[in-house]
Amino acid sequence: MTRWEPNARGRLQLAALELYSERGYDQTTVSEIAKHAGLTERTYFRYFADKREVLFFGTGMLQERLVQGIIAAPEGKPPLDMVGASLEAAAEPVEEIRDFSRRRQAIVAANPELQERELSKLAALTAALTDALRGRGLADPAARLTAEAGMAVFKVAYQRWVDEADDSGETLAQLIRQSLAELKTVAAAG
Amino acid sequence: MTRWEPNARGRLQLAALELYSERGYDQTTVSEIAKHAGLTERTYFRYFADKREVLFFGTGMLQERLVQGIIAAPEGKPPLDMVGASLEAAAEPVEEIRDFSRRRQAIVAANPELQERELSKLAALTAALTDALRGRGLADPAARLTAEAGMAVFKVAYQRWVDEADDSGETLAQLIRQSLAELKTVAAAG
Repeated sequence: MTRWEPNARGRLQLAALELYSERGYDQTTVSEIAKHAGLTERTYFRYFADKREVLFFGTGMLQERLVQGIIAAPEGKPPLDMVGASLEAAAEPVEEIRDFSRRRQAIVAANPELQERELSKLAALTAALTDALRGRGLADPAARLTAEAGMAVFKVAYQRWVDEADDSGETLAQLIRQSLAELKTVAAAG
Repeated sequence: MTRWEPNARGRLQLAALELYSERGYDQTTVSEIAKHAGLTERTYFRYFADKREVLFFGTGMLQERLVQGIIAAPEGKPPLDMVGASLEAAAEPVEEIRDFSRRRQAIVAANPELQERELSKLAALTAALTDALRGRGLADPAARLTAEAGMAVFKVAYQRWVDEADDSGETLAQLIRQSLAELKTVAAAG
């Protein structure tokens, strides 16, 4: 019997975040996450392939938005600025979940398995971004370099954004813009 | 009884490469690798922590050389050029093992577990490079952005170097120089 559950995905994400924070990732089972969310294990696996994926739904969303941003970018814009603008647009829905993102990052940072999954997701994102840039007529190796440079900007900005010690009240979009400007300065110095 | 075996590490690396190529990574055991190299499993584990590490000895070497390059770089050089020069110097011993590197890359590309380990190693390398740049007085976020940009240059250059379809006879050092110049062009366009 399958019944529709309102916002099952969100409830599972929140339950996982809570249990992974409180008990630790290794000490938590999928069955416990489902129970904590008031759902069944079967429902969990309808949304997430394994115990790790529940923490990476956002990366998939980010990738989709980023690729859409490149596809929709105006003609004639320099590729790296295209990527910068798409990153800022993709960051918009993330701004609202800063506390969630910080707690999630702390869980990922504490577990090598989760770090590996995060790196895989970022590599897939970089590949998708490279393809989108090729689709806009950018040749290789410029397409891949632009994508890698854009992801470097994003990683640095995101890390600052989730780092409470570094909290200057700036939005993720602002930090992306600053990091992009900084990268240009770094590259122009040579 | 432990006896000294000449070039045990190199023999194990070559044996692993051969068996992983012929039989596949999943179908090969550490015991088979050791036997193929004329050594014992115990000797294998003296050099490598697990079945994957045998393919990543080079990354550790690269990291050491890269960090040494940053430490020894002349004063007053722009940081990204410091990284470029260190990457070229670190690439030098790699030039001689292009065929080995191509076979190794094919094995890594065919196995998600190995890809994850590769991404972890590259992330560790980026972190070490960031630290080395901080040690040379570069502040954050410039240090991390410079390291990430340098690693982007290296990844693109290395991928071209191991890609037989893209083989233009250039050395890894030449491809690193080209990629760095291309990154500067990309960053200057905005």
